[in-house]
Amino acid sequence: MTDFLNDLPDLTLSVPTQAYLEEPRGRYQGRGLTVAKPATVDAVAAVLTRCNARGVGVIPWGGGTGLVGGQVSETRDCVILSLEKLNRVRDCAPGDATLTVEAGVTLAEAQAEAAKVNRLFPLSIASEGSARIGGVLATNAGGVNVLRYGNARDLVLGIEAVLADGTIVSDLKRLRKDNTGYDLRHLLIGAEGTLGVITAASLRLMPIPAERSTAFLAVESPKAALNLLADMQGRLGESISAFELIHRQGLDFLAEHFPAMRHPLESRPDWMVLVEIGGSKGSAAAFETALEAAFEAELVSDAVLAQSDGQRQALWDIRETIPEGNRLTGSISSHDISVPLSRLPEFIERAGVAVRAIAPDARINCFGHVGDGNLHYNVFPAPGRMKADYVNMRGQVQTAVHEVADALDGSVSAEHGIGRLKVGDLERFGDPGKRIAMRAIKAALDPNGIMNPGALFDGAPLG
Amino acid sequence: MTDFLNDLPDLTLSVPTQAYLEEPRGRYQGRGLTVAKPATVDAVAAVLTRCNARGVGVIPWGGGTGLVGGQVSETRDCVILSLEKLNRVRDCAPGDATLTVEAGVTLAEAQAEAAKVNRLFPLSIASEGSARIGGVLATNAGGVNVLRYGNARDLVLGIEAVLADGTIVSDLKRLRKDNTGYDLRHLLIGAEGTLGVITAASLRLMPIPAERSTAFLAVESPKAALNLLADMQGRLGESISAFELIHRQGLDFLAEHFPAMRHPLESRPDWMVLVEIGGSKGSAAAFETALEAAFEAELVSDAVLAQSDGQRQALWDIRETIPEGNRLTGSISSHDISVPLSRLPEFIERAGVAVRAIAPDARINCFGHVGDGNLHYNVFPAPGRMKADYVNMRGQVQTAVHEVADALDGSVSAEHGIGRLKVGDLERFGDPGKRIAMRAIKAALDPNGIMNPGALFDGAPLG
Repeated sequence: MTDFLNDLPDLTLSVPTQAYLEEPRGRYQGRGLTVAKPATVDAVAAVLTRCNARGVGVIPWGGGTGLVGGQVSETRDCVILSLEKLNRVRDCAPGDATLTVEAGVTLAEAQAEAAKVNRLFPLSIASEGSARIGGVLATNAGGVNVLRYGNARDLVLGIEAVLADGTIVSDLKRLRKDNTGYDLRHLLIGAEGTLGVITAASLRLMPIPAERSTAFLAVESPKAALNLLADMQGRLGESISAFELIHRQGLDFLAEHFPAMRHPLESRPDWMVLVEIGGSKGSAAAFETALEAAFEAELVSDAVLAQSDGQRQALWDIRETIPEGNRLTGSISSHDISVPLSRLPEFIERAGVAVRAIAPDARINCFGHVGDGNLHYNVFPAPGRMKADYVNMRGQVQTAVHEVADALDGSVSAEHGIGRLKVGDLERFGDPGKRIAMRAIKAALDPNGIMNPGALFDGAPLG
Repeated sequence: MTDFLNDLPDLTLSVPTQAYLEEPRGRYQGRGLTVAKPATVDAVAAVLTRCNARGVGVIPWGGGTGLVGGQVSETRDCVILSLEKLNRVRDCAPGDATLTVEAGVTLAEAQAEAAKVNRLFPLSIASEGSARIGGVLATNAGGVNVLRYGNARDLVLGIEAVLADGTIVSDLKRLRKDNTGYDLRHLLIGAEGTLGVITAASLRLMPIPAERSTAFLAVESPKAALNLLADMQGRLGESISAFELIHRQGLDFLAEHFPAMRHPLESRPDWMVLVEIGGSKGSAAAFETALEAAFEAELVSDAVLAQSDGQRQALWDIRETIPEGNRLTGSISSHDISVPLSRLPEFIERAGVAVRAIAPDARINCFGHVGDGNLHYNVFPAPGRMKADYVNMRGQVQTAVHEVADALDGSVSAEHGIGRLKVGDLERFGDPGKRIAMRAIKAALDPNGIMNPGALFDGAPLG
């Protein structure tokens, strides 16, 4: 069925194995005609040209780590276009603080390339060992350093991409300023592969902070966490790179599934914050001063400050293992919401009431990038009960949580994207004018609807 | 001819006065059917709906301060849609660090609103007293603080806009993270009014730095300026908010046209830098230490450090008056280029050779946002000669300068945009694939070609 691709140079074809047909949470079981692995941008263009001529769907595939089913199609047989062989470092210019890599380079490899020249590529997500730059950009990934360095899109200076009809857009400029026409970079970043395939990107590198401090703190409440953030920003400015809220529930799951993992705080508080700063010489001392002031102001009641890289890593391991603890527990429903910063406490309060009205005994693990107004708000069965016991409540819980986020001017997908999982949410909560514009753009750049069909739009985006 | 607009509510119509038909450099003499001043977003939508139905062109008009003719049409009679009455502050939330304003608010007014709540809106350009937020965003304005805070687009969280057919896109979210579909914000920002009219925006506010230091420094060369920047960034990190290169030629023009203005440095060097930092407590002392180190390393040979707000303002006045000195002198050709940072010295060298091969006695004033790789590279007649003497060389000079920028992977419009002035440059230097995508998007969102006709594209963008 994909014989029409057989004669293309720089292209490997193979039968889709299970790895290409599932996603991390096991919610989708995909289908695929073939896995096409181009090694050059011309090969990408050739695949798209031929698929476009035949109306064959194409799913751009990076590391397969997305959490909203953007990488799997259950309803349509597509060519799975894996970028894994398009994985060269094209250019590294530490003097310009830029790194140009192809889409198949993993995020961890890009970070390592930057480190080689004594620079930082600050984007950091739990799946960075597998996630590839193409997918990271297509989904505008977020992660733990957004507070300081922004989302993926904020770290990209230029892109190369192939549109549905095979047109190559070559805009890999490494410039901080370039006002020459529409910003296709930002249109393709976050478009989840529905408008074209990102094949390479020029990334911004940052200086490695001279000093870094990491602490795990006990706070009274989410509101207290926000007060602490405001206080620390006043004292430490932009040097705060991470400010992660953690709830006792997440550590309880870790204690259950990873008994060897030590709780960092004796006091076992309900709410905690993992904070990290990085700055020039003297910033570690400034952080200690800020921490003392926070104790005096009773913004913090207990703390551990990492004294070594090993201790720092241990604190981060706790934060980064929470998603795995959640997965092993098995959620009824998980959410990736954001609201304006000041409304976070109200969100947590109202969402809790809404969830308990549906599933009174459910456990809630609410954690994440509180400094960005972004929470992962996950709902779990009561101890001793099974996910299956709540199967009828799942949709209600999801709707209830999303309605609270929407009522507070928030987003129902802060960083994971829409994929296939949240198409209905986009229809329901998205602005109607925005949806009209999106459909017009989709129809213009992908008139045959071959690019990641079923993602972002329902089955008939152009109807 | 615009009777079809007469009965619309919340809309004022008037005969176009000269102010609406010219632009700052006097290069264009525009035409216009009427000046339509809507006071609400619904009135904007009504105007566009009716113009679209009749195929009547619409030029969105902010403060009229653009430098590339984006706000004037010489070839087609259009409705001039001035946003000046759509000028409300919709919301100011210092706790969320956001400010939501309508398009007709001037940049200076937005800055003042932020200051009222002890916050900073950092975008700063010479025309900020007249430029309005709508135009500032439509052109993705840059200015002196891009080094630290980014371009206009980096300071916008959400927008409201009206598309050509009157569709209102209402996406004024005030979120740091929102991955729900295509980023229309970034598509409309920088589109120069060719896809729709931005009617309001949610802006990001920043903390006001606790301490600020400003200095005027003598450096040996542009290369030395870059070495100084790298050295200071190593010591002071992100606190450097402005790093402006200034050439002796600019100060000579000031001495001629503004004899009361004092040269800040006794040594009268060829190359100077205006640097400003802002940070938490202690950063002013850190700046002085960095300055001492720069003297010891012979990166700086002379310096004046502002000791008061008045002195700071005097230093900035010099920088901000340079464009007016240029205007009074009368340039043969002006350019707004950017190149990767490391290539700036080579650009200055090669462009100088290229210009002098065409106009051997021309004077060059090269200045600007060197920290962003962005230079305003302007060419002037020799003393005692007139612009008219060079009239035949102007096109050649412009082409030569742009060719050097392009050869160094640079941009021929770093911050001023394309407008009508640089349509040919976009055709010549722009990526062909990007141009194809731009035309497809333009045709999709503005099929009748009514939005700012003649800007960005030649007369027949959809042909």
